[in-house]
Amino acid sequence: MKKYKVVIDVCGSDKGPEMMVRGALAALSEHEELELLLVGDREVIDGVCREGGADMERVEILHAEEVITNYDSPATALFEKRNSSLVKALAALSSREDLVGLVNAGSTGALIAGSMRYLPTEERVRPALAATLPAEKGGFVCLVDTGATIDCGAQTLLHFARLGSAFMKDMYKLDSPRVGLLSNGREETKGNKVVKEAHALLRAEESLNFVGNIEGTNALSGDCDVLVCDGFAGNQVLKVTEGTARRIITDIVKIAKSTGNESYMALVATLMAKYDFNSLGGGIILGVRKPVIKAHGASNEESIKNVTGMILNLAQNKEAFAGRV
Amino acid sequence: MKKYKVVIDVCGSDKGPEMMVRGALAALSEHEELELLLVGDREVIDGVCREGGADMERVEILHAEEVITNYDSPATALFEKRNSSLVKALAALSSREDLVGLVNAGSTGALIAGSMRYLPTEERVRPALAATLPAEKGGFVCLVDTGATIDCGAQTLLHFARLGSAFMKDMYKLDSPRVGLLSNGREETKGNKVVKEAHALLRAEESLNFVGNIEGTNALSGDCDVLVCDGFAGNQVLKVTEGTARRIITDIVKIAKSTGNESYMALVATLMAKYDFNSLGGGIILGVRKPVIKAHGASNEESIKNVTGMILNLAQNKEAFAGRV
Repeated sequence: MKKYKVVIDVCGSDKGPEMMVRGALAALSEHEELELLLVGDREVIDGVCREGGADMERVEILHAEEVITNYDSPATALFEKRNSSLVKALAALSSREDLVGLVNAGSTGALIAGSMRYLPTEERVRPALAATLPAEKGGFVCLVDTGATIDCGAQTLLHFARLGSAFMKDMYKLDSPRVGLLSNGREETKGNKVVKEAHALLRAEESLNFVGNIEGTNALSGDCDVLVCDGFAGNQVLKVTEGTARRIITDIVKIAKSTGNESYMALVATLMAKYDFNSLGGGIILGVRKPVIKAHGASNEESIKNVTGMILNLAQNKEAFAGRV
Repeated sequence: MKKYKVVIDVCGSDKGPEMMVRGALAALSEHEELELLLVGDREVIDGVCREGGADMERVEILHAEEVITNYDSPATALFEKRNSSLVKALAALSSREDLVGLVNAGSTGALIAGSMRYLPTEERVRPALAATLPAEKGGFVCLVDTGATIDCGAQTLLHFARLGSAFMKDMYKLDSPRVGLLSNGREETKGNKVVKEAHALLRAEESLNFVGNIEGTNALSGDCDVLVCDGFAGNQVLKVTEGTARRIITDIVKIAKSTGNESYMALVATLMAKYDFNSLGGGIILGVRKPVIKAHGASNEESIKNVTGMILNLAQNKEAFAGRV
């Protein structure tokens, strides 16, 4: 059986390296074709692996004494902390052919900067942090960008469309992912200057299945498989969705309390699980040579297990992630 | 008692002129200081007024034979349909001192263009269509802009902040409305180029109570009274909120059906009423000489009554709307 080795930077998450290791080991138990390169404090990693009875023939440990935190400047951390788990993980991923991708739950900025530095594509394009979110009609929507590139020109949006489309082919084996462009109206005359320009570019791009503008109301409805926008707008889509869900769920809790209707709390649990997009996975850095996933800082074992499985899935569906974009 | 006469363009709404007249008459019954100038087909208006037993001493009718619809180009409709209810209503509002504001439920584009043409301020600034939305913590948030000006520079955002702040003083008698700037992070380093520039301008503006950047998660939480953004982002905030609410409510309906728990449907009714922002009122055009409200095309009598009351309220709180901005 062919094996796929995923790199896990165990440092930088809110819940500590032990949780990261446990999550990775849970993925190891679930997927027999998976192997791990765990990067961080050797003693800590080793302890958790022994405790969990991990098959150490499938686990490699790379010791790193330094940690890049959210307090470090993303721009300089990579140079100042050369012995950090992130730099060592990225350097290994870049140089070793047997490594298929990386999971990290630390500083987003440092991860993006590092991925661009260590895993550049030939085009050297602007990076995108995509999120795959459950669509109302079923399946997933790949929202790209969600915050890696805040100021985008039309060419960058076109590029994001290509990246997102290639990703959805790899990830969900879609033949021809439907690409939508986030705008303030369905008509092609709607949009800001950049969006209108991007609309024309997307329309002209024969390699893409462009379905036109998508309004915020239907951002996550499932009318498209890839929703293209700049990082500012994508951040709004994610966060306004999150804020609205939180608000409505809080309302239901209040109504449950005031009416004493206990069955409302069952509903709250269902909705919280469904709309807690953070725990679903993480952001995928697109536009780099190998898949890199930024797991949420507050990730738990389950989400680390899931994103490790995503990397495996991507690697299996498309051995060479590069060259598609 | 001082009287305030509000202009109602009864044409252009989805539900027809009769509904518009009935909504306006409902406001007339509720506010004894209110008078109306109803613009549209005299026979139709007269018929509804008689039927409703309206006090015709407080109702004036201005006949107009033409109607500007959503099929007309906003740019040219004002010139091609000089006898339309909208042009007649705006011309009257512009020239007559006794008229305090206007309600319309037709073409948004034509209303904005017409308001800028007939009710320009001395500054001749870019128009804004603001929405006042119920905040999570109580009270209201004035979101400005929601779609009138899609491409904004930093100076325009500063101006929107002034307009929104003045409006919230007039509308809710707030002494010092808290102004927030929509961005992709709380820190002042977050934002696209224009937002970062606007942040500095807002920070430097002593007449404003600027509270910093607000993220999408808290757009409508009530951390600010005025949330400033360009029309593209504001449209996303409105529509993503609407789409998320619709999605969650649909989920609850499905769960109600599958579980047979009828009490869930009571919850659905409560949430639908609370999150149907469309019926709450309408967009307020800021940056013009007198208050103009764009009621939603699907408005009903209740919402027309409400927005007519808003204009009265504005006029009473601040007799001269002009000069504040």
